[in-house]
Amino acid sequence: MNFYVMTLFPEMVSEGLHTSIMGRAMDAGIIRLETVNIRDYTLDKHRHTDDYPYGGGAGMVMSPEPIKRCYDAIMEKRNSEKKPRVIYLTPWGKVFDQNMAKELAEEEDLIFLCGHYEGVDERVLNEIVTDPVSIGDYVLSGGELPAMVMIDAVSRMVPGVLSNEESGMTESFENSLLEYPQYTRPEVWMEQKVPEVLLSGNHQKIAEWREERSIDRTLQYRPELMDKAVLSKKGGKYYRLRQKEAVGQEKE
Amino acid sequence: MNFYVMTLFPEMVSEGLHTSIMGRAMDAGIIRLETVNIRDYTLDKHRHTDDYPYGGGAGMVMSPEPIKRCYDAIMEKRNSEKKPRVIYLTPWGKVFDQNMAKELAEEEDLIFLCGHYEGVDERVLNEIVTDPVSIGDYVLSGGELPAMVMIDAVSRMVPGVLSNEESGMTESFENSLLEYPQYTRPEVWMEQKVPEVLLSGNHQKIAEWREERSIDRTLQYRPELMDKAVLSKKGGKYYRLRQKEAVGQEKE
Repeated sequence: MNFYVMTLFPEMVSEGLHTSIMGRAMDAGIIRLETVNIRDYTLDKHRHTDDYPYGGGAGMVMSPEPIKRCYDAIMEKRNSEKKPRVIYLTPWGKVFDQNMAKELAEEEDLIFLCGHYEGVDERVLNEIVTDPVSIGDYVLSGGELPAMVMIDAVSRMVPGVLSNEESGMTESFENSLLEYPQYTRPEVWMEQKVPEVLLSGNHQKIAEWREERSIDRTLQYRPELMDKAVLSKKGGKYYRLRQKEAVGQEKE
Repeated sequence: MNFYVMTLFPEMVSEGLHTSIMGRAMDAGIIRLETVNIRDYTLDKHRHTDDYPYGGGAGMVMSPEPIKRCYDAIMEKRNSEKKPRVIYLTPWGKVFDQNMAKELAEEEDLIFLCGHYEGVDERVLNEIVTDPVSIGDYVLSGGELPAMVMIDAVSRMVPGVLSNEESGMTESFENSLLEYPQYTRPEVWMEQKVPEVLLSGNHQKIAEWREERSIDRTLQYRPELMDKAVLSKKGGKYYRLRQKEAVGQEKE
């Protein structure tokens, strides 16, 4: 899978994605990341990539032409004839989630356009962008961090990127439950002991305990996720018990 | 304002935040970023920061002791006696948004704990974390990118970070409306012309046009934001007109 990132800060994107998992997947050739500097596609001698907004107002707007030329250069490099999806990171985009990550992981190429300053000329967005996407309801200085977040999340869904398939499967959101608490050595740390059941070696009991703690945590922090949760028979029973308790408490 | 980031990938965090706006605010001493490598606080000779999970399962869990020692070292460096807020990036955290960014911008110090692998020993979370936070409903390889996203969004709310105060004020989410389209030179690009009104010099008309386009875009992409939108008198009128149209279309 090829990720192309159109940006004014190519080092930021490439440096920021060299963590263990991503780096390993790139070394193994499973994913490929190419950052392309929009500034290399300017035509004026000062290499300006932005200009004043028509109609006035604070900030600068990114010019359409360098972005279009940068995009054309990427299109020429690709081996595929298929029109790729072009993601523009913007607060007005569709909100990114794990389902979108899975869906995008099936693409061969993904192109990201990272905006900066007050925005990007609307006409070049009309011309090239297929998917405006937002990673959440907050304002950032540019599209680089959101692009990196998306590349990380999407890469993890590409087969072969995670060393242990199970790793991806058991993680948050896969069954719509939040993760259960984890413990490692030492057995007693700062007078807090690891829960007995985890030392029991009884796999059945451990699985039950973990599902119950996932249900507890989901009920505490993100109760709305319970509607889509996939529970075992025992887990379902525990959940109904917790619901009855909650109703009981409301009545008191 | 001081940001401390406890991480296994300190370069990733520091390199990734040197974009124009953040770098300038750091140079000006308005914000300070200190990344602290958890690995420097291990006690064993192999400098292990993780270990197998009790109860079995895929992946590794970050050990409590190096994190606690790393945290203690940061606490010693600080000038303040006040207990700082410690943010742990996790899918089960409270969902980050612009309101949280504003609220956190009033803190003097913020400490971030970036987890990796399958998780972090629950006991050290109990011991030091005040705010579990999630930046969105997707799974990432570690807490570094979310911490960077939060630091960017929070920094922008710190007075003096944005060169033009207005810049922050007119942006998305401030009035709960999405941004209007922006245009810059040339006036005609790929046969697409800049909207006439923006060339008119009539500030009143331009402001009206922009508010209407913001309403259009919000209705199209994020209609649920309209409930909290702050509209001018004319904008309110336009919005009611659009609502009537929508009702008319439904009847047809």
